[in-house]
Amino acid sequence: MSSRVPVAIVGASGYTGSELLRILHGHPGMAVVSVTAKRAAGARLDSVFPHLRGVSDAVVESFDADQVSARAQVAFLALPHGEAAQVAAALHKRGVAVVDLSADFRLREVSTWQAWYGPGPSEPGGPSGPGGQAGHVGHSTHPAADLLDLAVYGLPELHRARLRQAMAQAKQHGRAPLIAVPGCYPTASVLAVAPLLSAGLVSADGLIVDAKSGVSGAGRSPGLGTHFAEIAEGLRAYKVAGTHRHTPEIEQELSGAAGKPVTLLFTPHLVPMARGILSCVYATPIGEGEPDRFRAALAAAYRDEPFVSVLAPGELPDTSHVRGSNRVHVTACYDARSRRVLAVSAIDNLVKGAAGQAVQCANLLLGFDETAGLLAAPMFP
Amino acid sequence: MSSRVPVAIVGASGYTGSELLRILHGHPGMAVVSVTAKRAAGARLDSVFPHLRGVSDAVVESFDADQVSARAQVAFLALPHGEAAQVAAALHKRGVAVVDLSADFRLREVSTWQAWYGPGPSEPGGPSGPGGQAGHVGHSTHPAADLLDLAVYGLPELHRARLRQAMAQAKQHGRAPLIAVPGCYPTASVLAVAPLLSAGLVSADGLIVDAKSGVSGAGRSPGLGTHFAEIAEGLRAYKVAGTHRHTPEIEQELSGAAGKPVTLLFTPHLVPMARGILSCVYATPIGEGEPDRFRAALAAAYRDEPFVSVLAPGELPDTSHVRGSNRVHVTACYDARSRRVLAVSAIDNLVKGAAGQAVQCANLLLGFDETAGLLAAPMFP
Amino acid sequence: MSSRVPVAIVGASGYTGSELLRILHGHPGMAVVSVTAKRAAGARLDSVFPHLRGVSDAVVESFDADQVSARAQVAFLALPHGEAAQVAAALHKRGVAVVDLSADFRLREVSTWQAWYGPGPSEPGGPSGPGGQAGHVGHSTHPAADLLDLAVYGLPELHRARLRQAMAQAKQHGRAPLIAVPGCYPTASVLAVAPLLSAGLVSADGLIVDAKSGVSGAGRSPGLGTHFAEIAEGLRAYKVAGTHRHTPEIEQELSGAAGKPVTLLFTPHLVPMARGILSCVYATPIGEGEPDRFRAALAAAYRDEPFVSVLAPGELPDTSHVRGSNRVHVTACYDARSRRVLAVSAIDNLVKGAAGQAVQCANLLLGFDETAGLLAAPMFP
Amino acid sequence: MSSRVPVAIVGASGYTGSELLRILHGHPGMAVVSVTAKRAAGARLDSVFPHLRGVSDAVVESFDADQVSARAQVAFLALPHGEAAQVAAALHKRGVAVVDLSADFRLREVSTWQAWYGPGPSEPGGPSGPGGQAGHVGHSTHPAADLLDLAVYGLPELHRARLRQAMAQAKQHGRAPLIAVPGCYPTASVLAVAPLLSAGLVSADGLIVDAKSGVSGAGRSPGLGTHFAEIAEGLRAYKVAGTHRHTPEIEQELSGAAGKPVTLLFTPHLVPMARGILSCVYATPIGEGEPDRFRAALAAAYRDEPFVSVLAPGELPDTSHVRGSNRVHVTACYDARSRRVLAVSAIDNLVKGAAGQAVQCANLLLGFDETAGLLAAPMFP
Repeated sequence: MSSRVPVAIVGASGYTGSELLRILHGHPGMAVVSVTAKRAAGARLDSVFPHLRGVSDAVVESFDADQVSARAQVAFLALPHGEAAQVAAALHKRGVAVVDLSADFRLREVSTWQAWYGPGPSEPGGPSGPGGQAGHVGHSTHPAADLLDLAVYGLPELHRARLRQAMAQAKQHGRAPLIAVPGCYPTASVLAVAPLLSAGLVSADGLIVDAKSGVSGAGRSPGLGTHFAEIAEGLRAYKVAGTHRHTPEIEQELSGAAGKPVTLLFTPHLVPMARGILSCVYATPIGEGEPDRFRAALAAAYRDEPFVSVLAPGELPDTSHVRGSNRVHVTACYDARSRRVLAVSAIDNLVKGAAGQAVQCANLLLGFDETAGLLAAPMFP
Repeated sequence: MSSRVPVAIVGASGYTGSELLRILHGHPGMAVVSVTAKRAAGARLDSVFPHLRGVSDAVVESFDADQVSARAQVAFLALPHGEAAQVAAALHKRGVAVVDLSADFRLREVSTWQAWYGPGPSEPGGPSGPGGQAGHVGHSTHPAADLLDLAVYGLPELHRARLRQAMAQAKQHGRAPLIAVPGCYPTASVLAVAPLLSAGLVSADGLIVDAKSGVSGAGRSPGLGTHFAEIAEGLRAYKVAGTHRHTPEIEQELSGAAGKPVTLLFTPHLVPMARGILSCVYATPIGEGEPDRFRAALAAAYRDEPFVSVLAPGELPDTSHVRGSNRVHVTACYDARSRRVLAVSAIDNLVKGAAGQAVQCANLLLGFDETAGLLAAPMFP
Repeated sequence: MSSRVPVAIVGASGYTGSELLRILHGHPGMAVVSVTAKRAAGARLDSVFPHLRGVSDAVVESFDADQVSARAQVAFLALPHGEAAQVAAALHKRGVAVVDLSADFRLREVSTWQAWYGPGPSEPGGPSGPGGQAGHVGHSTHPAADLLDLAVYGLPELHRARLRQAMAQAKQHGRAPLIAVPGCYPTASVLAVAPLLSAGLVSADGLIVDAKSGVSGAGRSPGLGTHFAEIAEGLRAYKVAGTHRHTPEIEQELSGAAGKPVTLLFTPHLVPMARGILSCVYATPIGEGEPDRFRAALAAAYRDEPFVSVLAPGELPDTSHVRGSNRVHVTACYDARSRRVLAVSAIDNLVKGAAGQAVQCANLLLGFDETAGLLAAPMFP
Repeated sequence: MSSRVPVAIVGASGYTGSELLRILHGHPGMAVVSVTAKRAAGARLDSVFPHLRGVSDAVVESFDADQVSARAQVAFLALPHGEAAQVAAALHKRGVAVVDLSADFRLREVSTWQAWYGPGPSEPGGPSGPGGQAGHVGHSTHPAADLLDLAVYGLPELHRARLRQAMAQAKQHGRAPLIAVPGCYPTASVLAVAPLLSAGLVSADGLIVDAKSGVSGAGRSPGLGTHFAEIAEGLRAYKVAGTHRHTPEIEQELSGAAGKPVTLLFTPHLVPMARGILSCVYATPIGEGEPDRFRAALAAAYRDEPFVSVLAPGELPDTSHVRGSNRVHVTACYDARSRRVLAVSAIDNLVKGAAGQAVQCANLLLGFDETAGLLAAPMFP
């Protein structure tokens, strides 16, 4: 234990927090030394999450920046946006490396954060990514805008070099590193199509993302929109037509891949299953070539990726094939009739879409093998 | 009973057949006098479908065209394509009005049928509409191409007048009428966007249909692709990129609405629920105007429709809200950022997508109130 | 419409209330003239229950005893216990026939009601029958104990004669009739074994009821115990070992059937499905005889019952075979090895376990055909 | 790799086989060197199980006893009964330690095996434990009755000492060891109540086991009884009244615990979820004492068990809390009213009920830490 890096989980009463615990429980290089949550402070963690009986005897504490920084070198934040930025600032000031799973440091432009996450009603009725618990309050200004420049967007498949250098650079400047773990929908959607944009195979214009999520993405706070009898045997789109907060995040990353601004249409759906995201990205091809060139471009881009499988022709991703794991299944197809490209990806929203990706980022940050603690096979069925 | 129109159900061992029985059980103007199926001939229907215990004491018979025509004025065919055309021809020759739920008479061009339903492998792994049972044999030529001209496409919201006149016209020509009940995906998808095309509000080019279906659409024949443990907690697309047989059917009807040829990209999905289809249609707007003009056009088109509800702004369709009923929930939204239109519809694939629509068509054919037997409220939850 | 009996639904914002609306929507002899609910007063009913779009244009009102009694001859109460008794008293005083779906008038002894429903914490975590919404307040004394003598226990299969006479007797005494619709678990459990007790085939001692319910039984108020992601793929017993409030109700009715006091062990479970109850009752046989005599006794008892199917040897009940209907599937088996009897029944908890049975009782009360409005076939799948 | 024990999985095309692969994938002391299956021989394993993409590049082979024994020291058999005994005999003869997950070596009396697993129809419609694939042929005589004496029943919580000594004893006699991994229902049911019988707290007479299983227990061969649309939203008992083959196995182990013959009534159910077994065991208490003494006896018996959690008073097992793990949640409650005891347990049928327990046994056999490869936390939700 003594040789493992001590880490804290801040916001452990939600699904992202408990998933971090599940994954770190088997991690050879990190040890969870502090678990905090507002709602459950003082309780045993396994009374909050009975599946952790016999797994963890931790007691949930109230968050205290001094205590956390005294014990942990790295803090994973599984908090609502706004609150996450405040906690991140407090920990960062005390030299703790922060791996933030909220949306607070994902968007490079503070004005974009302001426009999408600033004052206004919270978002009921569906998943908006890890930490998207209900009941949060709008923030008129970003609580830690000065940290935005420091933050590295934690999608290793696109930004691995920056993630690897984050610790060194942070030390160089005497500042703790800060990683912004991507949202669940952006992870699935960006991985599906970014290589096609980078390779100039599809147009940056007119992209459509039709994505479907399991209900755990909506968090653990009960509501009519996540009530079993309302969800089972039902399927719906929600926050359509440019209203879901993951829209600018997907656009930011795809703009980076395309080398030009991307504006797209994003439609999220709620599916009667607990876990999983399937993202379909529709794009217009550029130029002519082999029908399989889109899939081949994905295969080339992800050849050495430890967690990404580009499927063979004729195979299609299924969320049940990646469940419980950090793996990504992805493919792309060309429809000669309509002259359109469809890229499809499947992830587990709580793992590659949240806690697993956070651990993957921390592995890079800490110089561990990128796959440490993340090699468990998917659970099927 | 004596005053009710005697009808037959041919192919009663699948979900479409049993759903016809459920609906006709409460119909004031039709009486089921014959129930046939290959697989279960000789058995009591309620041993094939235990939910019909106490509801029906019918015995399943082998199909015999003479016997069916001797007893029934109308025959509902819930058969695989190819076989349906053969049975339709046999019954039509004997003067029975045929309401066919297969794909055999939906496509006006025999060459299109040939290209999509002709020889070739059958389609595993997902719903292809009522009657799409596994194991059928490819047909090198349409078994009853001479009847195609006679067939009326049974989507009352688009072709009500023709359906109402079908019986009169048939009598005039001394031929029994023939109705081709639309596929489940086409019903949902066409109703979502046809009025926007008719009104010239969206372009006929570049349409994308991303539709999601419950598993009952794949029929009652067991297979690994519909095995509970493989489906629960999973979500996948299937038959993507222009390979699903409902593609030309959707294109045919939308071409009619647009007044010009439509070629589109259709992506079906399998969702872990028994019933329901949610269809998202993406389109490019033409011209400028109020953002709500698309929804308003749907509201205008469906103002007097007994089964279609155009939702208020801010509301979105959910398959659980139409389950078990012939109802359609539909809306359209405009995304000013991406300058795209999203039209969304929800239906029950076994009712409005199959058996209910068949009864609606038969009501029109027989001069009954269009809603006879179809007014049951959706079952929620 | 004018010739139909005007009825009110008091407490229409829960699943029992909406199910009453669904069933009465197709009833030939009753017309819903008033719909009240606390939470949704002033709203359109179809905004509370979007599946009622196009079905009902009712507006939810606050409950007012004078207004309800001015318009309705019969009131269905879908309210939490305690509150139901107060409303029942107010309406009864004004001459309205009351069909109460709560537990307030089911137990003949006020002391039993006091012991199980009196002051104390409410019951989280699982279904306790219709009207069992969370958040209700304990009542130290029964709010309308004087009405208990008047109440008829609304299980037609056991008390049909009393239900038929209730209106006449009520008129004779100048008092409106009052029906206590049974709980969902008691309906399933009593119907499974009462005839065996009445016939002296099984002992009144040592009965064990192991029953399993869908999640809709827990009502529409969201909570962690009914949160989709907590329920899907999970199964648990709850309120075990004599703590569930349906225990004394089952005992009361089985004591009546046995002719002697019955004390039993009742174990309810929560199953990841929306609807349905399966009840297994374990009993000790008395005497010797044919192994099939238990099933035969059920068949004899239910020979003329319009809603009960006693299954053939080898067949077993399945909740999916009665879903959405007022039907009951029941059987009994003898295990020669362990010398025990197992009686099994399946119902839809919201229909025969609540709203359907309420309408069945109202039909008897009003002199309608007992099956009026209740003949819809189960919805499968 | 070279220092790890080489093991084979025989019968890798079912859920038990793939679960063995998932668990052994993360095992520090065993390496899978051979994967065989009839149906999929020649195919890549990840084409049979797409969730193993990127996890395993194994190719499935036809079973050949010589080849397997040349490569592997231990063979896990995930085969139908009858076939398992034949393969076990062939491997045992060649000196391979056999961990058999079928029923072939669980019953100590060959006559009992003969009576329950001998010639006769196979068992459709529900789970009968790992390896219970459809389509197997009845065997008139046990194919390897001479090995029965050698076999150790692989329930470590009851037979740990024998399992630890099995390898040494086998070597002493020059025979390879043979472990019979318990069935899924027996594991859950025996663990729930054996300590109460051993402690003399409950009677050996009149036990009733009412157990509920997820659908993966029925195996991977498609059939109408496991077809998604037939199972979702349904619940049923099957093979009731002494007809399920796990009955004699539960009786054998509880007889051992009680020190006298146990005959019980066993009722299995199929629940619409993929994984999990919840077992409720009803028993009659002996003598008087503290109401909590039953739970306390479980706590005492399982104090040092690495995988068993005895829940605190007021807590109840839920299959979702052990999913994907080798853990057992168990408790017991006393109902003073009916004077009965209810013991309840939850396991994952594919892990502690099959593959996990097999690995646990192999760990003991090979002298590894009993928990090696089995410490992954349950996956929730």
